[in-house]
Amino acid sequence: MPYVNIKITREGATAEQKARLIEGTTQLLVDVLGKNPKTTFVVIEEVDTDNWGIAGEPVTAIRARAKASGG
Amino acid sequence: MPYVNIKITREGATAEQKARLIEGTTQLLVDVLGKNPKTTFVVIEEVDTDNWGIAGEPVTAIRARAKASGG
Amino acid sequence: MPYVNIKITREGATAEQKARLIEGTTQLLVDVLGKNPKTTFVVIEEVDTDNWGIAGEPVTAIRARAKASGG
Amino acid sequence: MPYVNIKITREGATAEQKARLIEGTTQLLVDVLGKNPKTTFVVIEEVDTDNWGIAGEPVTAIRARAKASGG
Amino acid sequence: MPYVNIKITREGATAEQKARLIEGTTQLLVDVLGKNPKTTFVVIEEVDTDNWGIAGEPVTAIRARAKASGG
Amino acid sequence: MPYVNIKITREGATAEQKARLIEGTTQLLVDVLGKNPKTTFVVIEEVDTDNWGIAGEPVTAIRARAKASGG
Repeated sequence: MPYVNIKITREGATAEQKARLIEGTTQLLVDVLGKNPKTTFVVIEEVDTDNWGIAGEPVTAIRARAKASGG
Repeated sequence: MPYVNIKITREGATAEQKARLIEGTTQLLVDVLGKNPKTTFVVIEEVDTDNWGIAGEPVTAIRARAKASGG
Repeated sequence: MPYVNIKITREGATAEQKARLIEGTTQLLVDVLGKNPKTTFVVIEEVDTDNWGIAGEPVTAIRARAKASGG
Repeated sequence: MPYVNIKITREGATAEQKARLIEGTTQLLVDVLGKNPKTTFVVIEEVDTDNWGIAGEPVTAIRARAKASGG
Repeated sequence: MPYVNIKITREGATAEQKARLIEGTTQLLVDVLGKNPKTTFVVIEEVDTDNWGIAGEPVTAIRARAKASGG
Repeated sequence: MPYVNIKITREGATAEQKARLIEGTTQLLVDVLGKNPKTTFVVIEEVDTDNWGIAGEPVTAIRARAKASGG
């Protein structure tokens, strides 16, 4: 009865991509640990780039800089 | 000083229902463990059905199938 | 299919008390939101008092002071 | 490689304030534990006041009462 | 920069199995969303069966009953 | 009434260091958002290096390799 929480930045993941994450994660828990998929939950949370920091600054700033530099 | 996080699918829970969840969970922690309600937090998170998976597929798909079959 | 995470300080909650928290929280979700108990998870996490802070200091220090003052 | 999750009520925190939380938390982990900022994540989640309870009632109700009493 | 938290019951998952969960989850995020593995975290938490409830009762009780019935 | 959860690898953080994390994080929320420290929680979770993955492998393996190379 695993519970998986996936947090990603909100940058346009589609319903189809999220369905693949759910399917793949569940299958992984079946394959590796023999878990029952019927009681396996996968919850995806999408977080605004203003609210996610790495290396001390928001992802919004990191993305803006990458764009400015043609990255 | 307990902290309780309740995750549910976003399917129309009302403010009144959420208030009942907050009240009931807090009271349970008082009754069972003698916790101080003043430092008991209950945080409810509502998750889109596209983002919640069970048995390897999104709740959106499960709800659609149930509806199609008259469930 | 709710998921509930209860965090408390590790201060001797018994298996019987934890079973009551699980039962009570699940029943609350059935009563208030009509959730299916078969797909309701409750996960209790017990946290060392050194690792839980409130008002800027660890619970260990708060408990020691309360004890020293006969609290 | 720390991961920090900050949950606050959704009451108007600005992007600039959230950037300061991200910067300050990351710096704290560098200063206290010598962690590498490049692999330090800070995720801020803002929760509606209807969904956050303290002392058994939603923050929405607490705020309304404080306002009514001129608080 | 995804963050994945996997909670499972503490029932003997080996270091090798946990390494496979880490590798598989990270690869899934690369394949489905094109995420950078260098900033992908996977954190596995193992929870005592007394502390995990499903259908209103602890997994400890469910396992004991399954064993008693030869399950 | 913020709630902060700090996850770090279990690699010998002392009670004094954890107290500094609690104090610093709480002060940051007071300084940046004017939060009340009395209802600010900080919960630190220490995770075994086998259970924390980055770049698709457990921290245990990363540490071993760094040590072998004199890192």
